Amino acid sequence: MRYSNLFGKTKKEAPKDEVSINAKLLIRAGFIEKLAAGVYNFLPLGWRVHEKIGQIIREEMNVIGGQELNLAALHPKSVWEKSGRWDKFGALYKLKNQSGEDLALGATHEEVLTPIISHYISSYKDLPLYLYQIQVKFRDEPRAKSGILRCREFVMKDLYSFHATEEDRASYYERVRKTYEKIFKRFGLQAIYTKASGGSFSEFSHEFQVITDAGEDEIIYCPEGDFSENVDITKVKEGKECDMGHGPLKRAKVIEVGNIFPLGTRFSEAFGAYFTDEKGDKKPIVMGSYGIGLGRNMGTIVEVHHDDKGIIWPESVAPYEVHLVGLSEKADEVYKQLKDTGIDVLYDDRDVSAGEKFATADLIGIPYRLVVSQKTGNKIEVKKRDSEKTEDLEFDSLLGLLKEERED
Amino acid sequence: MRYSNLFGKTKKEAPKDEVSINAKLLIRAGFIEKLAAGVYNFLPLGWRVHEKIGQIIREEMNVIGGQELNLAALHPKSVWEKSGRWDKFGALYKLKNQSGEDLALGATHEEVLTPIISHYISSYKDLPLYLYQIQVKFRDEPRAKSGILRCREFVMKDLYSFHATEEDRASYYERVRKTYEKIFKRFGLQAIYTKASGGSFSEFSHEFQVITDAGEDEIIYCPEGDFSENVDITKVKEGKECDMGHGPLKRAKVIEVGNIFPLGTRFSEAFGAYFTDEKGDKKPIVMGSYGIGLGRNMGTIVEVHHDDKGIIWPESVAPYEVHLVGLSEKADEVYKQLKDTGIDVLYDDRDVSAGEKFATADLIGIPYRLVVSQKTGNKIEVKKRDSEKTEDLEFDSLLGLLKEERED
Repeated sequence: MRYSNLFGKTKKEAPKDEVSINAKLLIRAGFIEKLAAGVYNFLPLGWRVHEKIGQIIREEMNVIGGQELNLAALHPKSVWEKSGRWDKFGALYKLKNQSGEDLALGATHEEVLTPIISHYISSYKDLPLYLYQIQVKFRDEPRAKSGILRCREFVMKDLYSFHATEEDRASYYERVRKTYEKIFKRFGLQAIYTKASGGSFSEFSHEFQVITDAGEDEIIYCPEGDFSENVDITKVKEGKECDMGHGPLKRAKVIEVGNIFPLGTRFSEAFGAYFTDEKGDKKPIVMGSYGIGLGRNMGTIVEVHHDDKGIIWPESVAPYEVHLVGLSEKADEVYKQLKDTGIDVLYDDRDVSAGEKFATADLIGIPYRLVVSQKTGNKIEVKKRDSEKTEDLEFDSLLGLLKEERED
Repeated sequence: MRYSNLFGKTKKEAPKDEVSINAKLLIRAGFIEKLAAGVYNFLPLGWRVHEKIGQIIREEMNVIGGQELNLAALHPKSVWEKSGRWDKFGALYKLKNQSGEDLALGATHEEVLTPIISHYISSYKDLPLYLYQIQVKFRDEPRAKSGILRCREFVMKDLYSFHATEEDRASYYERVRKTYEKIFKRFGLQAIYTKASGGSFSEFSHEFQVITDAGEDEIIYCPEGDFSENVDITKVKEGKECDMGHGPLKRAKVIEVGNIFPLGTRFSEAFGAYFTDEKGDKKPIVMGSYGIGLGRNMGTIVEVHHDDKGIIWPESVAPYEVHLVGLSEKADEVYKQLKDTGIDVLYDDRDVSAGEKFATADLIGIPYRLVVSQKTGNKIEVKKRDSEKTEDLEFDSLLGLLKEERED
């Protein structure tokens, strides 16, 4: 993509009403644009990152047997009444249609999926079952000041699992835990598995927490990774010696990038989702739910991976693989060569100063910056976004380097 | 995918409240499930088709320079007031948030995109510009009885174009027309380019209409393809001789699978989206908009391509390439071989009768049915869904056939 054609150029200033680092950088770099508090539009660069995040999640969901579907966002009041959450789910957007019927905007989908399950599942032979979607959610959040970390409209991957027994649910829960750890690692995030409140569903749930000053949650944790609890529920104090002998526990501000809930039989009983077991007994299906907010992860990546010049995207979710800065006519040719070999390249072909182009590249944060100028001759100057070191490479060596990076 | 694991098995009966062929077949075959009037959930089979439709559109949008983005669905009242459509757009869902602010659910996105354009575009050098999204829309349709042909919530591809001149807009409009014709052809639909009302934007717009009894619109058209007008606006009567000498014009019921609008400067003036031309004069940006409803196209494909046994998907959008009916143990091996060679296969591995498996295959409508049984020996019986002819092929010949089909 030629930068001159790209919609969503960088801005000198972030809007004054944005306080979070993620929103300031993403808006300045042309990834997102604010429509209202907690509601953002994704411009082409931002949508590319969002889609890459979604694709990584999709791949990992498919590995653990997830079947992708897509549930509606307009929910009849009846299903939320049936679960008892019409009045209890505080962030539920409610509206009426022209016929005066009450509707809710989907804040989560237990209320929609469990009734479908009750139509299709009747025997233990139909279980276990893992269904997920990557779909828009609406939540009327009272606080919405953290850029895309906490939005009123956001895309979420929500996975629901259905089991014959609590043991089977617990075993899949562990499997999802490992998959989540893999997903966050692919995003370049170090997520801490944290015990948290189970809300009205169960005694506990678990959150995946990433340490950053932008966090709205706090945890008490052992830096060696064997203990972490949300301060909302923990009885343990900062400074207490870790039971495993790893020294004093720490306290940190964190962002919740994912969560997993044992739902028990609360929803299956409410919606009549029963199955017949091997002995012929009718039992409620045991459920679990597992969420990852795509935009929130994108925002967290920015909070964790940036410097004073801009964003530093991990390769896995970067909008393009390389940012080609053209300072001589030969750049056109290199751009064509890169495209022809299947490299995703953003090419700054504008007629502006080298300094402005470098600043743009640093702000956008694509992992590799390539420079083609009089000085580089037949070679290409390569610099990683997170390093000061530059190196002049032949085209073929550059390709080798990028290919290696892809395989990492 | 093993059919025994697939979520969304076929049903013997369609729900009694569904009158449309598309909803009856798609529900019976396990593609969709109704949540409320005009609101459907897409089960795994249905979502695969929906995604394929989206991917075909995406490919073609990218060819004509479209940049994909994603705009929010929660709109502040202010933008709809600014365009004058808060009260005029009858199907607009309206709601209030907890702070009492009025919101609309996005029924279309001129009101959201044009203000963004006004921030980013200032010079004729920034034009033309083509932006699209594949994103959920909400419309409080009074009539919602046609299955997924007319929904209250549906995914739409909406492309918006921005130009310096009306001539440039007209030339891109023709380009989109050709692209749309290509897209509908790829869906297996014969769409008739039809003159229609321009609504409040312009004198005329154009619709792409597919002839079927399920249609809610009617057109007067020449079967040779040189004339078609929506009966709502036409002054021409059925039976009139075609001006090109092709005989009498016909009247037919049709479904609108796409539409394109010349928007003029209505929105750019309302939202202050101006540019400076080569002479330094400030002018409003000339716009066009171009829509395709994904679910509606999926429903139309079913209305056009089915028989009394079920759906007959065109290869391009079928949920799987082949439907393997296993009637002997060897089927497991063939399934593995097919998967290993990258063929998308739905494998009916259930312990039910051959008759039931054949009926399931016919209802689901995957283009190729493969049978592995005692009778077929080392060969595989191949039958196209739309043909009665069967043929026993070696595995390699089958692969050759499927590869050929892909390249078509």
